[in-house]
Amino acid sequence: MRRAHRIAAITKTLVERPYHIFGVGEFVDLFGVARSTLSEDLAIIRTTCETLEMGRVETIPGAVGGVRYLPFLTKEQILSHVEEICQRLREPQRILTGGFLYMEDLTFSPELLRPVGSIFATAFASVAAEYVVTVETAGIPVALQVAQALDLPLVVVRRQSRPTEGPVLTMNFVSGSRQIETMALSRRALPQGSKVLLIDDFMKAGGTLRGLSDLMGEFECQVVGKGVLIESSWPEEKLIEEHLSLVHLEEVDVKEQRVVVRPADWITA
Amino acid sequence: MRRAHRIAAITKTLVERPYHIFGVGEFVDLFGVARSTLSEDLAIIRTTCETLEMGRVETIPGAVGGVRYLPFLTKEQILSHVEEICQRLREPQRILTGGFLYMEDLTFSPELLRPVGSIFATAFASVAAEYVVTVETAGIPVALQVAQALDLPLVVVRRQSRPTEGPVLTMNFVSGSRQIETMALSRRALPQGSKVLLIDDFMKAGGTLRGLSDLMGEFECQVVGKGVLIESSWPEEKLIEEHLSLVHLEEVDVKEQRVVVRPADWITA
Repeated sequence: MRRAHRIAAITKTLVERPYHIFGVGEFVDLFGVARSTLSEDLAIIRTTCETLEMGRVETIPGAVGGVRYLPFLTKEQILSHVEEICQRLREPQRILTGGFLYMEDLTFSPELLRPVGSIFATAFASVAAEYVVTVETAGIPVALQVAQALDLPLVVVRRQSRPTEGPVLTMNFVSGSRQIETMALSRRALPQGSKVLLIDDFMKAGGTLRGLSDLMGEFECQVVGKGVLIESSWPEEKLIEEHLSLVHLEEVDVKEQRVVVRPADWITA
Repeated sequence: MRRAHRIAAITKTLVERPYHIFGVGEFVDLFGVARSTLSEDLAIIRTTCETLEMGRVETIPGAVGGVRYLPFLTKEQILSHVEEICQRLREPQRILTGGFLYMEDLTFSPELLRPVGSIFATAFASVAAEYVVTVETAGIPVALQVAQALDLPLVVVRRQSRPTEGPVLTMNFVSGSRQIETMALSRRALPQGSKVLLIDDFMKAGGTLRGLSDLMGEFECQVVGKGVLIESSWPEEKLIEEHLSLVHLEEVDVKEQRVVVRPADWITA
């Protein structure tokens, strides 16, 4: 197999599973080439990713020796993806009776969510999360993309416990709209002491993320990050601190049929 | 940019978004090379995928001229992935009081679900689906992976309608356990006449998929395929026909702490 073929195969393997460490030995065996030859192959892939700003290829030194692909985006790429989401949100036909905004085609879109996974993977690269945690339902697709981009398992907290979950920890919490809601998570879902990254699709006051954080406390897990796809600018006072959102929804003007939305400050700064 | 670099960049772009057609012109412009040179690059990637059984690269002829990556798996690869799921399901610690099986770590696992997306993309390659449809909650991750593998939008049917969905079509149906349950889907979610692929994580009698099919009828959509990750062998009589499942769950023996599970017949045949 020639170099060009090896590079196609290695790139395919690395990109398909970001963050996962592949042993260099696996590739050496697969292609039957010297380790030094393979190092040159990897150097070419690494340079390409650098030059074209297509993420990063990282070689892990040591006896084991591994390589992985990190789906990092540049500041410009993040802004461009978030601007695209904003543009889609501004479509006036999204405005529903009552001033609600129809967003399910966006929050369930694999096409739009894949880069969102990469954005959060970039933003939370340093927190060393071990699990991605979300609450059903609309948070699941975005959380799954983040989990995939970071090669982490996904844990989904339920609104109601189910018989197929075994012993469950149930917790009541007060939502942003001051209603009492329930969260339930199987005792098996999270080992004690895990570092978790919380991801949700939408946040108003932050009651759900507040509840989720408290639930993580009950599991003796440490919340190392909180990511939100779309944050509503109202109410101004939030129930949580230090969360990272991508889009700020400022106003839905039913009369003028206008949606005012913008990328979060950390993206445009 | 040398050939090896171009091949890394093109492979990354294609693999990251399976089924999506990329214009050959985009690559020609990006690298500033002749169309004939780029054709040679693509031929190398295509041959590599063929030789190593890493899916298929397809060139679409015509004035536009495009190329895409199809994440097709071989029969052996499908069997090997499904065997792995079976092995994980056989772990005796999954057996819960009451004979239930704890499966959430599997049905929410990005690592395990990615190949599942490719399996269904392979199996349903010819049905020309336009949407992937599932019901909340546990079906969402597997359906998202299928949608991603086929570059299709995902539609999630709710158990309860929500104010942020606009006008909703609500339907009652009888579940396999003879309970009346509800499904709700926003009128905007699916255009009339769409071809839909139904995906769910688990099926017993098939009541949910039956209900989902009927709901698709109400939307005047055509069900072109039904895929299920795990199918229970009991009850023997199913409420739907012509579905494709990957794993058959035959028995949970609480006394012997044994889970009897096997790949579906079409996989082992």
